[in-house]
Amino acid sequence: MTDIDGRAVAKEIRADVAAAAAKLRADGTVPTFAVVVPTDDEGTAWYVRSIKKSAEKEGLDCRVVQLDSPGRDEIIAKLQELSADPDVHGIICQTPLPEGVTLAEVGGHISPLKDIDGANATNLGRLGAGLRTWPPATAEAVLELLKREDLTLSGARAVVVGRSTVVGKPAALLLLNESATVTVCHSRTKDLAAVCREADVLVAAVGRAGMIGADFVKPGATVIDVGTNPTDDGGLVGDVDYAAVAEVAGRLTPVPGGVGPVTTALLLRHVIEAAELSETHP
Amino acid sequence: MTDIDGRAVAKEIRADVAAAAAKLRADGTVPTFAVVVPTDDEGTAWYVRSIKKSAEKEGLDCRVVQLDSPGRDEIIAKLQELSADPDVHGIICQTPLPEGVTLAEVGGHISPLKDIDGANATNLGRLGAGLRTWPPATAEAVLELLKREDLTLSGARAVVVGRSTVVGKPAALLLLNESATVTVCHSRTKDLAAVCREADVLVAAVGRAGMIGADFVKPGATVIDVGTNPTDDGGLVGDVDYAAVAEVAGRLTPVPGGVGPVTTALLLRHVIEAAELSETHP
Repeated sequence: MTDIDGRAVAKEIRADVAAAAAKLRADGTVPTFAVVVPTDDEGTAWYVRSIKKSAEKEGLDCRVVQLDSPGRDEIIAKLQELSADPDVHGIICQTPLPEGVTLAEVGGHISPLKDIDGANATNLGRLGAGLRTWPPATAEAVLELLKREDLTLSGARAVVVGRSTVVGKPAALLLLNESATVTVCHSRTKDLAAVCREADVLVAAVGRAGMIGADFVKPGATVIDVGTNPTDDGGLVGDVDYAAVAEVAGRLTPVPGGVGPVTTALLLRHVIEAAELSETHP
Repeated sequence: MTDIDGRAVAKEIRADVAAAAAKLRADGTVPTFAVVVPTDDEGTAWYVRSIKKSAEKEGLDCRVVQLDSPGRDEIIAKLQELSADPDVHGIICQTPLPEGVTLAEVGGHISPLKDIDGANATNLGRLGAGLRTWPPATAEAVLELLKREDLTLSGARAVVVGRSTVVGKPAALLLLNESATVTVCHSRTKDLAAVCREADVLVAAVGRAGMIGADFVKPGATVIDVGTNPTDDGGLVGDVDYAAVAEVAGRLTPVPGGVGPVTTALLLRHVIEAAELSETHP
């Protein structure tokens, strides 16, 4: 079994990002994105700090916009304000959102030209229609990792476990664009393990620690673990039972060190692309 | 084997449409849609005439806007003009489009509030995100037929053959919204017959006459045939080899008389909904 090294991939992407950021700055543009944080959740705060630190390391500016117990209207107003701000090239609306508010609903107020994490339904549709867009970075990270492996996605059977708007569905559409035969599973799927065993490429995005065991994996399959489940001791584990699946899979992403770092690197790449876009579409 | 009777379903929907149209007219609104026809293809002309006739029968107004060898810009300009016209509630851009022009690209210029056949990528994204929208009528017809049958979609294995933006992908998203376990197949799928035999619900949307044979169908499965392939003698056949599959399937839609009439009825229902929407969002 080979570990798929997300950190190495992220490092490559970030080197390109840093070079592009330096070029933009030399041209007088500071590539800048805003992260709207509508929660005081501690895990979220930690994650946002780590994105900001990564961004600044590569020469990007990151504005953290903390909102205090906001209502739907306040979040929407802030996203609209940032969408209209010419100095902000990219916008992320962090989750979790307040009770009763969905990302799909508020994400529609992020300008599609600044929607660097694919929160606006328009960008999901553009993905489905094969038009240029930014997919949600997590879903794109899955593909970025797969494409760097020596495997043929065209005609491969891919199974995505999880049907969220931010990971499962966009990952399925991206795999379909690569001509994989794609199955989407979820909580209502019957005999999930058997369906997963059909997969040459298995993508786990359910949010349940270690639920994908060895019996879910066809021998030799490539397994991408999108899960990031916090452990009691402050660590992080994936949706895949790593030790067990490592005995069966051909390739496997570790958690941490797999999808996560690539996701962050792709967000930064999207900021660069959005900043470049703002120069041609001011 | 039971035939699924699309004509009967269409009749029910159209009765509701006629009642709603009469109510709108009594309120001073004539529910109106425009069909932009950017081709002089004879089959298309026939289809558009049949939609117009159906619409007028139920009390709707249908404007056929014929364009003569138009370029991309002319089509876009017309769609924008109709999007701004307060007397037009719904807009369809008919295919085939001129060489090099895609529906995804020009469809983005149909106002989402008038996009009654789901040609704007925004509406595909809204479908994926679970937001209110009009799916492409053909894809919705598949679900409309399935929901009226005595079967449980939640947890069922559904296989969609075809990954087009107007049928395959939206049908897959609709089935996923109903909690089916959904597989999308296409020209690159290996051992297509075996994958199709996994299906409790099989949706054929490939556009190749009779290519789905008995060996593609699990005994007792429900088969929805979206194909409408013209025959040499001026008739229409589906993607399913009807005679052969009828020996194996539990339920099957005929062609003609299956998905087709329901598609037209749903288009008319969308016009009514768009006209009602225009009263609240003028």
